Amino acid sequence: MSDVAPLANDLLLRALRREPVERTPVWMMRQAGRYLPEYRAVRAGSDFLTMCRTPALAAEVTLQPIDLIGVDAAIIFSDILVVPEAMGCHLTLDEGVGPQFPTPIRSAAQVQALRQVDPVTDLGYMLEALTLVRRELNGRVPLIGFAGAPWTLASYMVEGKGTKQFAIAKRMLFEQPAVAHALLEKLADAVGAFCQAQVAAGAQAIQLFDSWAGALGPREFREFALPYLARAAAAVRETGVPLIAFAPGASWALDEIADATQADAVGVDWHISPTDARARLGDRAVAMQGNLDPCTLYAPIDEIQRRTHDMLEAFGPFGHIANLGHGILPDIKPAHAKAYVEAVQQHDWSRSAHADARAAALREPAGVSV
Amino acid sequence: MSDVAPLANDLLLRALRREPVERTPVWMMRQAGRYLPEYRAVRAGSDFLTMCRTPALAAEVTLQPIDLIGVDAAIIFSDILVVPEAMGCHLTLDEGVGPQFPTPIRSAAQVQALRQVDPVTDLGYMLEALTLVRRELNGRVPLIGFAGAPWTLASYMVEGKGTKQFAIAKRMLFEQPAVAHALLEKLADAVGAFCQAQVAAGAQAIQLFDSWAGALGPREFREFALPYLARAAAAVRETGVPLIAFAPGASWALDEIADATQADAVGVDWHISPTDARARLGDRAVAMQGNLDPCTLYAPIDEIQRRTHDMLEAFGPFGHIANLGHGILPDIKPAHAKAYVEAVQQHDWSRSAHADARAAALREPAGVSV
Repeated sequence: MSDVAPLANDLLLRALRREPVERTPVWMMRQAGRYLPEYRAVRAGSDFLTMCRTPALAAEVTLQPIDLIGVDAAIIFSDILVVPEAMGCHLTLDEGVGPQFPTPIRSAAQVQALRQVDPVTDLGYMLEALTLVRRELNGRVPLIGFAGAPWTLASYMVEGKGTKQFAIAKRMLFEQPAVAHALLEKLADAVGAFCQAQVAAGAQAIQLFDSWAGALGPREFREFALPYLARAAAAVRETGVPLIAFAPGASWALDEIADATQADAVGVDWHISPTDARARLGDRAVAMQGNLDPCTLYAPIDEIQRRTHDMLEAFGPFGHIANLGHGILPDIKPAHAKAYVEAVQQHDWSRSAHADARAAALREPAGVSV
Repeated sequence: MSDVAPLANDLLLRALRREPVERTPVWMMRQAGRYLPEYRAVRAGSDFLTMCRTPALAAEVTLQPIDLIGVDAAIIFSDILVVPEAMGCHLTLDEGVGPQFPTPIRSAAQVQALRQVDPVTDLGYMLEALTLVRRELNGRVPLIGFAGAPWTLASYMVEGKGTKQFAIAKRMLFEQPAVAHALLEKLADAVGAFCQAQVAAGAQAIQLFDSWAGALGPREFREFALPYLARAAAAVRETGVPLIAFAPGASWALDEIADATQADAVGVDWHISPTDARARLGDRAVAMQGNLDPCTLYAPIDEIQRRTHDMLEAFGPFGHIANLGHGILPDIKPAHAKAYVEAVQQHDWSRSAHADARAAALREPAGVSV
């Protein structure tokens, strides 16, 4: 990507490295999504999977929140389930039903039959979209690539559709643990290779989503989720770009996730207070990303501002990437999303409890200050 | 209830008081449920609500797991949503759809129109069922009554049906907090009065289920869930029977729940290790109930036994009521449920890491030993 301009706004990357920043960077999970009328206009002409597979459309909606909301990072528009699909699991996304695999994975033979993914030939559309967005951004903000973590993808492949309890997937862990491990191993390799290809295509940071981590208790999380998340993370780390590991519902494991993945930042969901999250991480050299409850954006704007203030103060001025604690909801008013982003960007640290530490850190020429 | 025999098996009540017990008592949430063919036989002849409203049927299925599985407590067969229904929310329970309130609560006027519940006239069928079960048990094991906690009932009334995110209910907390508080207040009074009536009808312990506690972050939990759970709990405490407070998904708040409710035991869900739960509770004089992941019962029986052993050792021999960390799933084999219960009841504490402390505690004539 030598033909694009250097980054004008590198706050995200500096915060991920826990360097002093003039202000906290902010983006929102699902920021390229249904809450934006401009997104719905594109979506009206194409189904979701067609949007994912058409680089020009994926690029268009990826850029919308940069222009419309003013976030400090772009995240490529796509879906975590494109990886299982590339492995040969037929994926359907019917309106109102949600994504489904009509032939869920339940046996060793099915796991063995899954294809080895070649990201360039099988997922080239997302790589093209990344390159296109990177060019169109032209250095305005960094571009984040992403993938689902192995446990999350596996649980979806085994269930075949969304579920509250993941009882079918968990049943496999207890009844056929060897089949589960074989599936997770294949997924870890596919996810790792895919993330590396995303970096080659222009991604400047990678987020791994272990979205269903909360379906597992500590013992199963440590056996079936964490080692495979770590394996995919190791592939990301080889690229040298920063890694964000997000495992909502597993706040109790933030320390173990940081250790196993060596991520630059861990995502913090809205179930946990920033203070508890920091305590769980101890003195580990890791940034945190999060964690306003997306439902907070239903509140009046002055209340959004107050709560954003409280969140920023709780995380402190460095080593924090402001985000929601989960994806933005489709019925949030864009003005409320924008109020959140602006409340982060305009936060007055000079009147903060952190004012002195911050002033001192910003005087230092470089280095980690958290 | 002077016309029933004294308790032959009072392990549950003694464990709730954290007294030394010869063995850890065990029961399972949803133990009167679909995993039992004998339950399905009764259910084949009546819909779910009819079973709740027919004392003879409710009593029959309540007693099944005592006879068939050998648990150490009975819990009355019913549903938490009978309280909103008694307040005037029409409830439907169609096959395969789950419970629904076709007219969800969304406005102050609707909250105001909710009826004041008189447990004896409005929920007499459950009180009759309790009295019937208590007589039929004739002292074999204690009988537990229960109710949903105010936040859990309110969220269901506002949503109108089951949901993953509770975005509509949470939206009310952010957009119309005064309406939410008015609803929660009414519910707390109704739940409190209902629990008192259950005790009068024969319940020997009460469990409050704040099943959707995990839908709230710390700030909302402290404002909208905990104070109303505490208010209902205070009504239970007036009766003198032991109280179990269970708020799955809010393990981070176990200490606050114990303090606010002054419960004899807190329920521990399967997301948290017993060690972390104990650490969160510090030196509070409170028992714990839980927490085997219900999916563990999919495992082969020898694995169920190993994991039950590990769980018992982690909780220790006193101040623990063994249970699952959530309701038993409908496709669990009864033999596996029975293997779990027997693994608890036959656990050999003399070969445990706790052997010495246990022997010493059992030598003491009385008092709390944890």
